[in-house]
Amino acid sequence: MSAQYDSADYLNKVDAWWRAANYISVAQMYLKDNPLLMRPIQASDVKAHPIGHWGTIAGQNFIYAHLNRAINKYDLNMFYIEGPGHGGQVMVSNSYLDGSYSEIYPNITQDEAGLKQLCKIFSFPGGIASHAAPETPGSIHEGGELGYALSHAVGAVLDNPDVIAATVIGDGEAETGPLSAGWFSNVFINPVNDGAVLPILYLNGGKIHNPTILARKSDESLRLYFEGLGWDPIFVEATDYATTHKVMAQKLDEAIEKIKAIQTKARAGKAEEAVMPKWPVLVARLPKGWTGPKVWNGEPIEGGFRAHQVPIPASSHDMATVDSLVEWLKSYRPEELFDANGTFKAELRDISPKGDRRMSTNPITNGGINPRPLNTADWKKFALDNSDRGSIMAQDMIEFGKYAAELVKANPDNFRIFGPDETKSNRMNEVFKVTNRQWLEPIDKAYDEWMSPAGRVIDSQLSEHQAEGFLEGYVLTGRHGFFASYESFLRVVDSMATQHFKWLRKCKTHAPWRKSYPSLNLIATSTVFQQDHNGYTHQDPGMLTHLAEKKPEFIREYLPADANSLLAVMSEVLSSKDKVNLIVSSKHPRPQFYSAAEAEELVREGYKVIDWASTDKGGEPDVVIAAAATEPNLEALAAITILNKQFPELKIRFINVVDILKLRHPKVDPRGLTDEQFDALFTKDKPVIFCFHGYEGMVRDIFFDRHNHNLRIHGYRENGDITTPFDMRVLSEMDRFHVAKDAALAVYGDKAQDFAKKMDDTLAFHHSYIRENGEDIPEVRNWKWEALK
Amino acid sequence: MSAQYDSADYLNKVDAWWRAANYISVAQMYLKDNPLLMRPIQASDVKAHPIGHWGTIAGQNFIYAHLNRAINKYDLNMFYIEGPGHGGQVMVSNSYLDGSYSEIYPNITQDEAGLKQLCKIFSFPGGIASHAAPETPGSIHEGGELGYALSHAVGAVLDNPDVIAATVIGDGEAETGPLSAGWFSNVFINPVNDGAVLPILYLNGGKIHNPTILARKSDESLRLYFEGLGWDPIFVEATDYATTHKVMAQKLDEAIEKIKAIQTKARAGKAEEAVMPKWPVLVARLPKGWTGPKVWNGEPIEGGFRAHQVPIPASSHDMATVDSLVEWLKSYRPEELFDANGTFKAELRDISPKGDRRMSTNPITNGGINPRPLNTADWKKFALDNSDRGSIMAQDMIEFGKYAAELVKANPDNFRIFGPDETKSNRMNEVFKVTNRQWLEPIDKAYDEWMSPAGRVIDSQLSEHQAEGFLEGYVLTGRHGFFASYESFLRVVDSMATQHFKWLRKCKTHAPWRKSYPSLNLIATSTVFQQDHNGYTHQDPGMLTHLAEKKPEFIREYLPADANSLLAVMSEVLSSKDKVNLIVSSKHPRPQFYSAAEAEELVREGYKVIDWASTDKGGEPDVVIAAAATEPNLEALAAITILNKQFPELKIRFINVVDILKLRHPKVDPRGLTDEQFDALFTKDKPVIFCFHGYEGMVRDIFFDRHNHNLRIHGYRENGDITTPFDMRVLSEMDRFHVAKDAALAVYGDKAQDFAKKMDDTLAFHHSYIRENGEDIPEVRNWKWEALK
Repeated sequence: MSAQYDSADYLNKVDAWWRAANYISVAQMYLKDNPLLMRPIQASDVKAHPIGHWGTIAGQNFIYAHLNRAINKYDLNMFYIEGPGHGGQVMVSNSYLDGSYSEIYPNITQDEAGLKQLCKIFSFPGGIASHAAPETPGSIHEGGELGYALSHAVGAVLDNPDVIAATVIGDGEAETGPLSAGWFSNVFINPVNDGAVLPILYLNGGKIHNPTILARKSDESLRLYFEGLGWDPIFVEATDYATTHKVMAQKLDEAIEKIKAIQTKARAGKAEEAVMPKWPVLVARLPKGWTGPKVWNGEPIEGGFRAHQVPIPASSHDMATVDSLVEWLKSYRPEELFDANGTFKAELRDISPKGDRRMSTNPITNGGINPRPLNTADWKKFALDNSDRGSIMAQDMIEFGKYAAELVKANPDNFRIFGPDETKSNRMNEVFKVTNRQWLEPIDKAYDEWMSPAGRVIDSQLSEHQAEGFLEGYVLTGRHGFFASYESFLRVVDSMATQHFKWLRKCKTHAPWRKSYPSLNLIATSTVFQQDHNGYTHQDPGMLTHLAEKKPEFIREYLPADANSLLAVMSEVLSSKDKVNLIVSSKHPRPQFYSAAEAEELVREGYKVIDWASTDKGGEPDVVIAAAATEPNLEALAAITILNKQFPELKIRFINVVDILKLRHPKVDPRGLTDEQFDALFTKDKPVIFCFHGYEGMVRDIFFDRHNHNLRIHGYRENGDITTPFDMRVLSEMDRFHVAKDAALAVYGDKAQDFAKKMDDTLAFHHSYIRENGEDIPEVRNWKWEALK
Repeated sequence: MSAQYDSADYLNKVDAWWRAANYISVAQMYLKDNPLLMRPIQASDVKAHPIGHWGTIAGQNFIYAHLNRAINKYDLNMFYIEGPGHGGQVMVSNSYLDGSYSEIYPNITQDEAGLKQLCKIFSFPGGIASHAAPETPGSIHEGGELGYALSHAVGAVLDNPDVIAATVIGDGEAETGPLSAGWFSNVFINPVNDGAVLPILYLNGGKIHNPTILARKSDESLRLYFEGLGWDPIFVEATDYATTHKVMAQKLDEAIEKIKAIQTKARAGKAEEAVMPKWPVLVARLPKGWTGPKVWNGEPIEGGFRAHQVPIPASSHDMATVDSLVEWLKSYRPEELFDANGTFKAELRDISPKGDRRMSTNPITNGGINPRPLNTADWKKFALDNSDRGSIMAQDMIEFGKYAAELVKANPDNFRIFGPDETKSNRMNEVFKVTNRQWLEPIDKAYDEWMSPAGRVIDSQLSEHQAEGFLEGYVLTGRHGFFASYESFLRVVDSMATQHFKWLRKCKTHAPWRKSYPSLNLIATSTVFQQDHNGYTHQDPGMLTHLAEKKPEFIREYLPADANSLLAVMSEVLSSKDKVNLIVSSKHPRPQFYSAAEAEELVREGYKVIDWASTDKGGEPDVVIAAAATEPNLEALAAITILNKQFPELKIRFINVVDILKLRHPKVDPRGLTDEQFDALFTKDKPVIFCFHGYEGMVRDIFFDRHNHNLRIHGYRENGDITTPFDMRVLSEMDRFHVAKDAALAVYGDKAQDFAKKMDDTLAFHHSYIRENGEDIPEVRNWKWEALK
């Protein structure tokens, strides 16, 4: 920690670095040739459509340069999260200056030719994104959809005690819901076991076309806001450049030293005894469009929304204003920064952190620090013996909770469970026999349950955004976990799941140098078909359709019908890579059906003809009944027993489907069954009764390209209400009686009218009984599978 | 404002009201008969599955009773928003006590029989929801999905200057993203033109299974937090009941008087000169499960999460603990509250506000105060003359902006525009010729644009949640507006749109007494097919599929292909009722095609065979080309000109589709075309090339039940990237060359191989050109429609 870093000379070098980053950032927006203006500019040097966002650049480059200085001064293990949605040049330019860009992309050389190419590809067809993206070195966080900078940062530093996530939060992003709730995440960071997040609230004053709310508040108001939330705000405000460098260096040092002091003090004790520290937050008032044109066309630019995008309208089509562009570029004095070859000068490059201390190559940003596969233990240890089909009544999520507890034990520092206050409601109580919820606010020992400053479950904030964001940050840094949610409220994070998928896809298409990630595992439980008492607001199985629209290579959807199937699925998804896995699971008492071997096959193949529930004896069936998920499987099986009793000659084939997307046509999904396989399973023309957990359009879509369109779907029909579990199924006609009736009519037509009438009468009886007694009849509640004739 | 309301006698009556509300609320959870325990309790009196949420009840009933007192004391026009997700008994019990429940539901009489029925239906099959819901008198806000209490409240009080929205926010909800960002909404309430929101942060200490973050913070921390945000916190904490009544009365009076003082002061001046006041917020520490069992089975109940649901496990199946239930019920001394008939005693009923001063019947909660239809003006005034097809280049959203400005003028106090900082980016600049953005933070006159403390646009917070929530509150109180968003980021509020739809549906099925609402209008612009420069994160057209899964009676999806179509659509949706309308619109320069008359027909019928773009002369076509939305329409038309030149004999039918859901089968959508209509349009077997804005599965779903499966869809294929506008279409094969090739191959098979090769070569040329020049070739940029041979 030498004093050299505080010298005027050193700060001059930091200033030079900053100017170089600014220069390259502006050049990337406008130029495709002659990047250092070594010859007079001409139209062919300029892009046809200069694109990019200037507003956030200079402020972020300033922060980045000072973070580099702090890394050097304190030998920090730090990385950068770029919250502001645009300004992708920041991380690109700084990575180019520290050399890593050329290491990763050798065609981007450290000379004029490389710089020319770097400028050209920026926000250019076939090139790189205008925000931090998978192809950006050092990023784990994509610009674009805003709100998740803090939660990604927190997820990344959990169990990474040496790391500091320098997290720049734009004052636009700071107005979103998810980011606003993200300030509560200081409740979940353990100063002993976890690293630190250094939020840098970057108040540049403007959004797209508006001022920002927080920038218009006084320092005093902001101080109250952050102190109220338990943070320790440190303020920096831009004045002249030289002074601001000095102030920034000093304030950033103060923040780093506070983090170190907090950690040193906490680490003298036990993680389980830590108390919530007042982590520093840097509040930086650095004007939007800083160092750029102050005024354009008589309108002020610097300091607000007008600096958001490209401030000077020069382009290859219109060179009238190019002199102003050149003047702007030259204001950074490129001749002091680059040598005659266009290479960044060695004495300036010298202040870059070295090797993996560079934020652009910090291993946490590419697969994680020391990433290890999950020890998936042996799920079969927890398998139920279902040899007597349907005789055991169990709760799938309780059984999984036992396995999850084993996983917690087997992976003490790289496996976590996230949720929005629902871990217990979702029945994973067994987990709390081996760990606690991590929570740094005061604990009321007389009242609270399973809480500790250190624990493997983070579920004490009622926010799907936070749970999802933490998990994303955790898996993007090479660790493992899942987020279990009420099914309907997973929809709150629809778009987060999409953005994560987009990240995964772009890694494969645009950044093959990136390592694989453990998958993002989303458990949808407390599902639509048992949201009888919580009612209609809690009923939405549409995450299935939502994710199925994305690229099939990155999406899996599992609908395990019982505990063994769920265990097999979880073992699979937790060892999978680069996927968004959706697992739909029941948490209520249900009969258990499938052996461990069957469950294994169901996950491996995705589906299985269940011989003990079929009467086609391997021959051509009269009707195919398929089911995906717990209640569809249960009702389909019950329907089969009814049909078998009434029509003992009827040849039924029953198929349980776990990996629903595998049924898609190979035209849509490369994993999809061939037409031959599909026809062998579902026949070309026999009636198919499909009992489905989700919306019916998804099944129509799946069958569209298949021969067999003799399809009758029983899915969720948006007829929710307050009622009993069985009646919820009746409302969607996904109950045994509707299913049996439909199958009989499909096979026997009018000849089944008497039977259909019987089913209708039975349904009417149930309707009355339920409305009188407020519960299902005992025969339904205690229904048992009986072997078929 | 008589002193009577402060007397001990009056507060005793408030206490009695509170006890009565608590009594009824507990009885609703457990009892289906003998509601007043007038005879010894027996198993048949108790529900089989007592369901409900106790935790929030007594605290909310306490607040409700005191709000009633304040209404009386100050003659307030106030209504109640129940933020806590459960505890539906609160609004039901209080509505029963004030008589309104019996007015609305005459079978729920004011005697023991009525009370018995009220208890039975609560959270019971066929009955009423366990949270505030459409069937709950006085509610505009459904429990269930949490986070929107404040934004609904703000939307409701805009342009309702006399109204106070008493908005109870649970400490669970307060941890969500949307609610956290909701505190910024004081920036948007004008104290002259708008009413007031009185947030009541209800710190009961527990969630489902966790303590809450805010409840564990000190009053001092909370004071800093709220003062930092510009609110004026007033604290209330429960001690003994009598003292707490006194304190609550006094603190609530203080809050009301502060609101009145703020308004009086502001209203002495102009709305345009108002400054942001420090609105009061009441912070009420009232323990979860207050007045209920303090301990159960040796575990503490009152004060935290264990009070969340049903605290005593008595049921008709298990009467072992029923004595404790009876003891609990009797602790409210029902004999003091109800007479021998079971009627709430007149001297207690007497303290209820009267008539529409009751929060349960405040007109704002059922259709609004003086709701008026929108003056939709005449959109044709703004129609473009497209008699020379495709010759005008215009930006649909700019043209719509002119109409929107007219709407603002024609509806000065019941029409608003909401957005997340995107009104200008979405090209509605014309609106700012007639109004400003409403914004109460300081305005920088030298820099800011179109901002004023009073204006019809609210878009200065970067939060889709807030924009959507404000609009919901606004239309749920009988006013009109729309929310325009970048298409991809509408997905952030997927679930909010779902919950609004659920509200609309339940109004029709469960609360026919409710008046109609103006529709919720969502404009998705800056769409996937022009998100070339913002890149992949900004590309998601899936809101189309998402909403299409819901009940068709309440959902409309419009894909206008040009400005005239958009104007006609907007006129339609803004005068529609009880719908969620999704409008997908381009904002970029595009050729304009449809006459005002065609646009009118397109909206009325939903689709139209475009004769000037067809060569089938009304006969059987060789190929049907259909298009929905701007870029699909543009590329389809361009493809038709290519095909027509190459294959002049080819009989093409071109169909433009605006109301996409009308193509669905009547089995799926009651408005759907009959098979005859569909076949007449698309034929039974000719190739159909469908150019679609969204994901392709939705079109497969639409065609599943139709005869014609000879379908080739060109929709969004999730191949997004940074590129040019035209190349974005090429990536999804939704461009003219892929479409023309596909049509030719579909009709001519192998005979079209030469043509197909030509198209491939053309595509390869474009690919190279674009990657070299960074823009599309001039022939594409300036493409013009040419009349067909």
